[in-house]
Amino acid sequence: MLKKQFNDTRNRFVDICKDLKTEDYSVQPCIFVSPPKWHLAHSTWFFEQFVLLEYKADYKVFDEDFAYLFNSYYNNAGKRVLRPNRGLMTRPPVEKVYEYRAYVNKAMNEFLDETSNEKAQATVSLGIQHEQQHQELFYYDIKYILGNQPTFPKLKNNLNLTEVHDKPSWIAIEENVYDIGHKGQGFCYDNELGRHKVYLNRFEISDQLVTNLEYMEFIEDGGYQNFNLWHAEGWDYIQNNDIKAPEYWHKVEGAWHYYTLNGFEKVNPKLPIMHISHYEAFAFAEWKNNRLPTEFEWEAASSKFDFGLLWEHTHSAYLPYPGFSKAPGALGEYNGKFMINQKVLRGASVATVENHSRPTYRNFFHPNMRWQFSGIRLAK
Amino acid sequence: MLKKQFNDTRNRFVDICKDLKTEDYSVQPCIFVSPPKWHLAHSTWFFEQFVLLEYKADYKVFDEDFAYLFNSYYNNAGKRVLRPNRGLMTRPPVEKVYEYRAYVNKAMNEFLDETSNEKAQATVSLGIQHEQQHQELFYYDIKYILGNQPTFPKLKNNLNLTEVHDKPSWIAIEENVYDIGHKGQGFCYDNELGRHKVYLNRFEISDQLVTNLEYMEFIEDGGYQNFNLWHAEGWDYIQNNDIKAPEYWHKVEGAWHYYTLNGFEKVNPKLPIMHISHYEAFAFAEWKNNRLPTEFEWEAASSKFDFGLLWEHTHSAYLPYPGFSKAPGALGEYNGKFMINQKVLRGASVATVENHSRPTYRNFFHPNMRWQFSGIRLAK
Amino acid sequence: MLKKQFNDTRNRFVDICKDLKTEDYSVQPCIFVSPPKWHLAHSTWFFEQFVLLEYKADYKVFDEDFAYLFNSYYNNAGKRVLRPNRGLMTRPPVEKVYEYRAYVNKAMNEFLDETSNEKAQATVSLGIQHEQQHQELFYYDIKYILGNQPTFPKLKNNLNLTEVHDKPSWIAIEENVYDIGHKGQGFCYDNELGRHKVYLNRFEISDQLVTNLEYMEFIEDGGYQNFNLWHAEGWDYIQNNDIKAPEYWHKVEGAWHYYTLNGFEKVNPKLPIMHISHYEAFAFAEWKNNRLPTEFEWEAASSKFDFGLLWEHTHSAYLPYPGFSKAPGALGEYNGKFMINQKVLRGASVATVENHSRPTYRNFFHPNMRWQFSGIRLAK
Amino acid sequence: MLKKQFNDTRNRFVDICKDLKTEDYSVQPCIFVSPPKWHLAHSTWFFEQFVLLEYKADYKVFDEDFAYLFNSYYNNAGKRVLRPNRGLMTRPPVEKVYEYRAYVNKAMNEFLDETSNEKAQATVSLGIQHEQQHQELFYYDIKYILGNQPTFPKLKNNLNLTEVHDKPSWIAIEENVYDIGHKGQGFCYDNELGRHKVYLNRFEISDQLVTNLEYMEFIEDGGYQNFNLWHAEGWDYIQNNDIKAPEYWHKVEGAWHYYTLNGFEKVNPKLPIMHISHYEAFAFAEWKNNRLPTEFEWEAASSKFDFGLLWEHTHSAYLPYPGFSKAPGALGEYNGKFMINQKVLRGASVATVENHSRPTYRNFFHPNMRWQFSGIRLAK
Repeated sequence: MLKKQFNDTRNRFVDICKDLKTEDYSVQPCIFVSPPKWHLAHSTWFFEQFVLLEYKADYKVFDEDFAYLFNSYYNNAGKRVLRPNRGLMTRPPVEKVYEYRAYVNKAMNEFLDETSNEKAQATVSLGIQHEQQHQELFYYDIKYILGNQPTFPKLKNNLNLTEVHDKPSWIAIEENVYDIGHKGQGFCYDNELGRHKVYLNRFEISDQLVTNLEYMEFIEDGGYQNFNLWHAEGWDYIQNNDIKAPEYWHKVEGAWHYYTLNGFEKVNPKLPIMHISHYEAFAFAEWKNNRLPTEFEWEAASSKFDFGLLWEHTHSAYLPYPGFSKAPGALGEYNGKFMINQKVLRGASVATVENHSRPTYRNFFHPNMRWQFSGIRLAK
Repeated sequence: MLKKQFNDTRNRFVDICKDLKTEDYSVQPCIFVSPPKWHLAHSTWFFEQFVLLEYKADYKVFDEDFAYLFNSYYNNAGKRVLRPNRGLMTRPPVEKVYEYRAYVNKAMNEFLDETSNEKAQATVSLGIQHEQQHQELFYYDIKYILGNQPTFPKLKNNLNLTEVHDKPSWIAIEENVYDIGHKGQGFCYDNELGRHKVYLNRFEISDQLVTNLEYMEFIEDGGYQNFNLWHAEGWDYIQNNDIKAPEYWHKVEGAWHYYTLNGFEKVNPKLPIMHISHYEAFAFAEWKNNRLPTEFEWEAASSKFDFGLLWEHTHSAYLPYPGFSKAPGALGEYNGKFMINQKVLRGASVATVENHSRPTYRNFFHPNMRWQFSGIRLAK
Repeated sequence: MLKKQFNDTRNRFVDICKDLKTEDYSVQPCIFVSPPKWHLAHSTWFFEQFVLLEYKADYKVFDEDFAYLFNSYYNNAGKRVLRPNRGLMTRPPVEKVYEYRAYVNKAMNEFLDETSNEKAQATVSLGIQHEQQHQELFYYDIKYILGNQPTFPKLKNNLNLTEVHDKPSWIAIEENVYDIGHKGQGFCYDNELGRHKVYLNRFEISDQLVTNLEYMEFIEDGGYQNFNLWHAEGWDYIQNNDIKAPEYWHKVEGAWHYYTLNGFEKVNPKLPIMHISHYEAFAFAEWKNNRLPTEFEWEAASSKFDFGLLWEHTHSAYLPYPGFSKAPGALGEYNGKFMINQKVLRGASVATVENHSRPTYRNFFHPNMRWQFSGIRLAK
Repeated sequence: MLKKQFNDTRNRFVDICKDLKTEDYSVQPCIFVSPPKWHLAHSTWFFEQFVLLEYKADYKVFDEDFAYLFNSYYNNAGKRVLRPNRGLMTRPPVEKVYEYRAYVNKAMNEFLDETSNEKAQATVSLGIQHEQQHQELFYYDIKYILGNQPTFPKLKNNLNLTEVHDKPSWIAIEENVYDIGHKGQGFCYDNELGRHKVYLNRFEISDQLVTNLEYMEFIEDGGYQNFNLWHAEGWDYIQNNDIKAPEYWHKVEGAWHYYTLNGFEKVNPKLPIMHISHYEAFAFAEWKNNRLPTEFEWEAASSKFDFGLLWEHTHSAYLPYPGFSKAPGALGEYNGKFMINQKVLRGASVATVENHSRPTYRNFFHPNMRWQFSGIRLAK
């Protein structure tokens, strides 16, 4: 079962990369984007470092240099290539990284056949979830890599947003104490643990995501020019970066177009708005005289609506739940050390691996970031 | 009563500046510090702009240029000198700014004698509180101005920290729903309003602030070299800025010294630690295997301990309370637009004007800032 | 004679500062501008460091800290305040700097009465020339300090440019070998020494400086928009810094105005163009289908025209003459180490102290600088 | 003849790239390095833009986008990808660029068979020289790309420096007027034209390049720590960039090693020192109590020594010769607009295409650059 999950996940990554050109694998257009080759190798290194080296007798690493090349941010796992330099490593070439994946897969399959160590199995589970996260990041990154080239190359994919057909309606949630956080035996990250009570006032939340049409109205109404709608830092950010529309949007002959992995096309007004930062989501909500939900409101209401199209901005800062504690060693660096200056997003997106989502899942990004697949659900 | 409060506040600012050299008034050593002259003029402009121009018939502004020169961040009140340039305005000279203060004081006294407009009076109250905040900022700023000069000049003052004599003990607070936020008729800021219920688990909080002695132990134990204690961004920040001790601390011949307004002297181990950022407070708490309290815990426990020495770092992000709404117009820019990427500090400091503090008062700074008079109270 | 020259120079600096406000003395709006207080102290420190400490028995320094505070760039004379921080030193206050000047003047007068040491006297001569250079820099700097404030304050002065009345005519200089460099016994800097032969082709040089009128024609003709006129680096520089006119020029209601120390006024078309960088001078010459003279051409022709209004841009890079050698020790840092990436300007300006100019004098600035009093003389 | 030269040059570029991995073609580790793919395409675009589109009837461009993608700095030839983004274009892939080369080669061969237009032929000559320059740049760039990766990959090549066996001796050149600049009918760049007389004092110049051994002595003697040897800007540059040895040098277990395209190996003391900037060459010459030759001295003496191992730093700024004039249109941007802030290097290097060098050839780089194949010849 774990072995099947492992192999499915590993195969899926190779599968979603199969239409890339060799050149697409290595480039890093900005610091927050990682090259596909790096994702492929790093998610492999995770199994090598935290499972095989830890638990498999006589395991021989594929290449001594790779720990240095493909560690992401685990200080406890040694030195590493600085993040801005990930795109400069032309070697190992892509083919070598695929050999690395095959080598580690083989060793992992052997290991999964022979082991009954529960701690090791838990780390394998974490590694699978980790790789699934990187598969989602891969989509953010390849879209950024291709969508910022003057020729707007396409990439075959099956990420399909669905149109928002009906009028949104408001779901009312009553004032009460709610239980928040992960429950039960299934996998969750450490940041979801510490199920605890949160007191919520009565609120209402939309059953639908905001559409491109609504967002275009915000733009046309001067939303990007009205400082009263914005956080002071958001306002500075859009001024300094000359932001007047969502990521990938371009006005061509008076009409809004955007880059998608299917190419450069006219904005579909019925689809949910996507690629807006927390700053933009906040300003849009102000303009609507609504607000973003907190992550607790979102979770308390989540059984009443569908989600899974886009990660939904919340008003909440990314903070530890009561009683949060980090795992010892390098894996303790997974979540806790990022709990500052970031905002929680809830839900999942069309780029999320199936079964990787939960109502208690806490995703997080800095408030200026918008290359992730993010959307807006309003509350009031 | 309001008039007396007005005049007391206004006179106090002149009083605390009386030992400055003319040169000290104009300098801006970094972007977050404002020159004393600017504080004196800006707090005056606030009354001119929001009270006299708004409510006093036939009021004639002292100088047409001053709105441009001394507006801080109120976009709704027009254009202004960019923040980094505040220290470059040698004109008007200091003497002119004192004339400006006298001119506005005279007009305000006339106005306060004649008016019964409650909205105007509320704005005067806000202006008084605003000026008191700038008087506290003045102390942060002048300490930074003088404390970063090679000659460490002194400034006469009566800001006295008191020693922490006894062993700290833990105060236990029971699990319950607590009411949080301002209650009653007295003055408060908009960010304290929206009294609401918060569910708290049982916790314990120290009755004392952390001392210099304890913090020196943290330093000696390698606290600034152990990445596991830090947020990832905190770690990057102290690396990039080569931070190895609190602001104003210097090691001289093996012993820690610091700059205070009384001069350069040996660190007193019994005084509370001061001038540490949220990043440093967090790392210290990790090292102690404790944590910082949330602002809700702090408020719920605040009747059980004394405060008023230093602003106390909390774990909470600066976010609006349920039902928060901004005032219309420029004064709506006072607090709300800063509710992103900042951390709440609670309490008050020795630089806070008497009666300016409340248990519900929410101060806020970015997590890297440490020129403010900040300290640490632990929780667990 | 040397004593009179010393006292005249020293008194002149106090004299030209007498209309400054105390606040004007301490500010540093950008890295290449130094505060007037710093100039006053640094030129004094030069005599203390290189004359009094070197040659006067039992001389006691005025203040031990001043060497650190007021050294400019002499690595051999010890550590010093970093250049960008000169404007942050509010202490010593201005009055203390004037005491410092008086103290050093007294000691210097005693010393000049008693000494007959020729090396010491030569250093005094250098110190006088040095202070005269700083008096000229003072004018560049105070103009920048005042001219970049929104209120455009005036300063009483007697720097008067004279109008260029007549049509310029071309002076022809024949092909030949010319002697270049300082000759005779009078004072000169080390960079003028090494009189040597230079072979020049026939050329013509204008007898007049380019006027504001001609420069306005260049602007109106799109000079700042035509990349073909500019060096690649010049073009980048004006794009990145959004430069579309000389320093201090502003277009108000369709007419060019500029800041002068006499206030903000309409551009006088008959005055020579001023405050243009080498980049701009080069582009203007290209537009005219002329060129800038080399410094050798300028010197060879200099007896045929008047100069002294503005420093005149030349085409020459600032390089050592054949046989150039630096003085030993700190004074060897005076000129030689700057002989890279700079351009030579020849002549003198209305801000130059009388008798401080010579036809062989080599001034130098980076090609982007334009706060100095610079003008254009064309050649072909 | 021209056709053979064209085809030889074009084929050579494909040949020297044949051992690259696909990934190596696209990366740009810093702004001054261009990806090999870009060089291959840009040198092709040059023929398409300036020959085929200009002179060949009915020529159809290979791809409309390529002018935008592969123009370097010719403002007159339209908009283009910004220099720092050259490494982000994963498309077109390498194979497409090779198709582009073949397509243009075919059209060029047809054109060269049919044309007798001398202006067109001159542009073809220029295009050949241009491509040869890019072939040399390719070596600088690929060395930088590979040499800054942690794994130090090798690349097969035939660039061989030869050892400097004997004691260097000084060649004396007498004081006289010398003719400088290109003479005769062969190809030269516009910056070599304007043959003119230069008066030179007697000087001596070494018959050999400085060796690694001599340079290691400079390092061991504290050359990088002694500010008196450096230009002020050079000193700042090495401080700010933490430079303590030539590019590609690393000290491993007490011994100097360097990266070469043959791998990471111990420094050979007998080879000429390489990859030093003008700043470093100047400091080394100061330390030796010698100096760098001027470009005029170098040219006047060049018949007396061999050159061709490394480009040799000169003291001369890159300036136009008397009578220099730019070609009209885009090709006028080839050289002239760079004649500011750069230094002349003379000679040729082992990476220079055979017959691409001349005693009058003027190469130029900024004084901080050192990724080019540069060396030192002393004068006095």
